[in-house]
Amino acid sequence: MTEPFSFRLIKTDGAARRGEILTPHGAVQTPAFMPVGTQATVKGISPEAVAATGAEIVLGNTYHLMLRPGAERIAALGGLHKFMNWQQAILTDSGGFQVMSLSELRKLDESGVTFRSHLDGVMVELTPERAIEIQALLGADISMQLDECLKLPARAKEIARAMQLSLRWAERSKQAFEAGKRGGRALFGIVQGGDDTALREESARALIDIGFDGYAIGGLAVGEPQEVMIKIVAETAPLLPEGRPRYLMGVGTPHDLLEAVARGIDMFDCVLPTRNGRHGMAYTRFGSINLSNARHASDSRPLDEQSPHPAARTYSRAYLHHLTKANEILGQVLLSTINLAYYQELMFDMREAIAAGRFADFHSKTMAGWEQGDIAPPPS
Amino acid sequence: MTEPFSFRLIKTDGAARRGEILTPHGAVQTPAFMPVGTQATVKGISPEAVAATGAEIVLGNTYHLMLRPGAERIAALGGLHKFMNWQQAILTDSGGFQVMSLSELRKLDESGVTFRSHLDGVMVELTPERAIEIQALLGADISMQLDECLKLPARAKEIARAMQLSLRWAERSKQAFEAGKRGGRALFGIVQGGDDTALREESARALIDIGFDGYAIGGLAVGEPQEVMIKIVAETAPLLPEGRPRYLMGVGTPHDLLEAVARGIDMFDCVLPTRNGRHGMAYTRFGSINLSNARHASDSRPLDEQSPHPAARTYSRAYLHHLTKANEILGQVLLSTINLAYYQELMFDMREAIAAGRFADFHSKTMAGWEQGDIAPPPS
Repeated sequence: MTEPFSFRLIKTDGAARRGEILTPHGAVQTPAFMPVGTQATVKGISPEAVAATGAEIVLGNTYHLMLRPGAERIAALGGLHKFMNWQQAILTDSGGFQVMSLSELRKLDESGVTFRSHLDGVMVELTPERAIEIQALLGADISMQLDECLKLPARAKEIARAMQLSLRWAERSKQAFEAGKRGGRALFGIVQGGDDTALREESARALIDIGFDGYAIGGLAVGEPQEVMIKIVAETAPLLPEGRPRYLMGVGTPHDLLEAVARGIDMFDCVLPTRNGRHGMAYTRFGSINLSNARHASDSRPLDEQSPHPAARTYSRAYLHHLTKANEILGQVLLSTINLAYYQELMFDMREAIAAGRFADFHSKTMAGWEQGDIAPPPS
Repeated sequence: MTEPFSFRLIKTDGAARRGEILTPHGAVQTPAFMPVGTQATVKGISPEAVAATGAEIVLGNTYHLMLRPGAERIAALGGLHKFMNWQQAILTDSGGFQVMSLSELRKLDESGVTFRSHLDGVMVELTPERAIEIQALLGADISMQLDECLKLPARAKEIARAMQLSLRWAERSKQAFEAGKRGGRALFGIVQGGDDTALREESARALIDIGFDGYAIGGLAVGEPQEVMIKIVAETAPLLPEGRPRYLMGVGTPHDLLEAVARGIDMFDCVLPTRNGRHGMAYTRFGSINLSNARHASDSRPLDEQSPHPAARTYSRAYLHHLTKANEILGQVLLSTINLAYYQELMFDMREAIAAGRFADFHSKTMAGWEQGDIAPPPS
């Protein structure tokens, strides 16, 4: 018997929320950060190592997986969990975002979007119904509606049109999901509306009328300044039902996470910790550290001797600098792992702070740690 | 108090030998395969994961490490073991082989070799004395003499000249090593002489007169046919002292290892398992398997469900195929790990077979397994 999907709000502290999502693949403590497993792998990191950072849920990309190796193939092989050997929860996106950012020759109309695969040039159609079908084939614990995601800045008319289309696709996504519903799985709607407060409110209210298991805020972190993103989050989150998880898509830096949790967001995903890790950047309690900088060459200190993760405690900055300069795979793997571990540590600490009613204090202390910057290297 | 270096011959079975090397960083059961940690990392694999494949010793490259990050820097950071977080034994080569294969503008004379760094174009000198000094700075448990390694085929006169020069460098390497000797560390001499039996014998006898803690056979797997390599090994190994380890440098495929152990070799190193793993090839009991081949795309079987290593048992061929086609780092990491694990499994099984006096039987059964080839994919 499959566990039902549910969300329980455990504690609030200001607008910040401490909760728990139950899925067929275990519990997810919120606020939660989801590492991105684009092509059925969190880049460079084994599933055991992803779990060891503290992650309880990862994200899979419908766009990438439908093109290679194919949703039907993954289903025939037992689903995405089995395929990538990840036993905990998986949220899949609907493919809409990557269609806009990666594919060429796309044709968007009421029915859906047709695009040319960036892999082999084949024309592929993605509709709200097909996006739901693909996510069911993958075996997602949480599926997302298909939406149209614009880059910002965009014209108000264009933002309104895309938001309205996304609402109609939300309705169709819900119908397709209900028609094929399997116990315990969840469908989230996505609030669109760009940087326009009124459009965001219209979108949120219409989605709530349709009714979803959770609500995402999409179309942010797409080119707008951080303060715009924070403002939209601050305005939109309170419109969403208290008893459903709130997911800010594609966000962000540690500072983004801190500010968004402070405004009532429960879930995040972002490629930054792994992508920047592959390019020599470490996220730490002391802010971000560029390991390719020569000043680390003889620095015997680890990145953070108090980190709960052994990789951040064990390897010297000099070694991580060396691996980065030598373009060694292990440098990419270690820094990606260290960054995911720091993101999970940050989420853990935020959850603890909310539960204890000291989030504001945690917020200011964490900011102070980042602003203090990298501690000085030892005399040489 | 540092443990002394020693070698104990435990059992012979035909020419095959089961032994144990003791080093300041633990015991090494022989025959042993040493993963190659070129730039202070076995490419893509954490030290914990290298140890989990069963490796008890890794190889470090003097040429790469002297150029980046520098031997003095590694010494200041506590030595190579600490730098790369590898607590077991390390053998370092002398740099000679890479000087010949990687650098440009080299000038070789009696004193040593001067070459232009492939990294920054700086001219660098490497003498027998400096090679010993570098290896001491790295903290190698086993150091190698500087030698001149030719590619084959080569003219007889050239082979003789290089062998004689390598002998004079062996003498100087021994003197430098004795002058700076630290307890427990070992120095190996290197038999040269190309594919010429008489020159190999002359080299071996002269090295034994100088006296080393172990003896390597160098200058093989440099372009000659496998049967030439096996012939030289078969002729040279019996000339070497029974009570010292014998190391065949830069070799080889699983089949090479099997044939060389049958002829009395105790130690190996090779980049094949990691390099070929990064290019989609798996080494298994069923022979080598090219995961990029489309026939694996829907194959739900693991590479070897009886493997002692979880990675070979857990991930489907379809998943490894997908990661390889998608050029994902995790594919390179998993296949490198699986290959190292298979090499270690092969060494373990050879040690068991020698100890039980059934090496000939193991040899023929292992060959039959490889020749049987990849087992057929399931009907689809």
